[in-house]
Amino acid sequence: MSTDSDRHAMKMAKKKVARDKIMATKTDEKGLIIVHTGKGKGKSSAAFGMIFRCIAHDMKCAVVQFIKGGMSTGERDLILSRFGDICEFYTMGEGFTWETQDRDRDVEMAQAAWEKAKDLIRDPSNKMVLLDEINIALRYDYIDINEVVRFLSEEKPPMTHVVLTGRNAKEELIEIADLVTEMELVKHPFRSGIKAQIGVEF
Amino acid sequence: MSTDSDRHAMKMAKKKVARDKIMATKTDEKGLIIVHTGKGKGKSSAAFGMIFRCIAHDMKCAVVQFIKGGMSTGERDLILSRFGDICEFYTMGEGFTWETQDRDRDVEMAQAAWEKAKDLIRDPSNKMVLLDEINIALRYDYIDINEVVRFLSEEKPPMTHVVLTGRNAKEELIEIADLVTEMELVKHPFRSGIKAQIGVEF
Repeated sequence: MSTDSDRHAMKMAKKKVARDKIMATKTDEKGLIIVHTGKGKGKSSAAFGMIFRCIAHDMKCAVVQFIKGGMSTGERDLILSRFGDICEFYTMGEGFTWETQDRDRDVEMAQAAWEKAKDLIRDPSNKMVLLDEINIALRYDYIDINEVVRFLSEEKPPMTHVVLTGRNAKEELIEIADLVTEMELVKHPFRSGIKAQIGVEF
Repeated sequence: MSTDSDRHAMKMAKKKVARDKIMATKTDEKGLIIVHTGKGKGKSSAAFGMIFRCIAHDMKCAVVQFIKGGMSTGERDLILSRFGDICEFYTMGEGFTWETQDRDRDVEMAQAAWEKAKDLIRDPSNKMVLLDEINIALRYDYIDINEVVRFLSEEKPPMTHVVLTGRNAKEELIEIADLVTEMELVKHPFRSGIKAQIGVEF
């Protein structure tokens, strides 16, 4: 082994001790409120990745799409056709708000989606519930943020994970969340005239 | 309809026109170099979500894990057991570098993973190739960044998407990437003593 490798081994050994020490203090388990926000890509994909992680572990889970198009139809079809027994999937929204142009209808849809979400979260057999693009419905006040905060704080079973996605997450939600990731856009191909592509965007 | 709703409908109609106009200019398709970096969560999950998106669309794809543990064994097992025909999956790394403490061996592993990655990318039947946690191998110079940049720029088939994940993405990689997302950590439950949990972290 070269001296370079020796130095590396020593440095890494130290790092491992430090890390193991930190990890040993992390002993609690609880159901997390997880938020994916920001203008970057990956908010829904990462949430969908977690849903697949649950499916891989045979953990019951559920998805409510508040705005159609957040998670692609490809993903939905795959879950419905192959894993419908372990993951309930509901698409309640009709599309992005600038597509529908009817506020009353959007509010009605968002409310129905929220009622479904509450039922799914209340059912303790669901280990994870994903509320895809709910932040958009919250942003336009289709759903009352105070009601969502109250429900998640008071009625969510303690071991259930709830994942909420969408840009512009409200401060009140970030406040009560356990894990918040902001997907920040560094570079996007739309800027150079590349269109949304199968497998990447949908 | 209320005046409030009228105003909303008008605003959204305008937004739709503007958006449709922008989208109409996005007509090109090409294989993208996609980078997920940053200290936040979701880098591997979002990439894994894209792999499932490909699987959902029956697009051949492949995964090389440069560091074991980036993507969970749950995810790997699910892909191998259910979708092995459409997605090749290789775990080449042994664990995070602070676990192995042997630089020579880490370099050897990373090099082998990179050779496998090149073979998979060169095969045009693969529509997407995910190089999970390759940024860690690049950061420690287990693999030469110039060789990776050269290969992706010169040898990647034009329609193949390559996704590269891991913190501390090198500048040279960001330079040639089409789509870069930085997952920024806003809040993390480890800080309040919560341990890594099944379905969320692995």
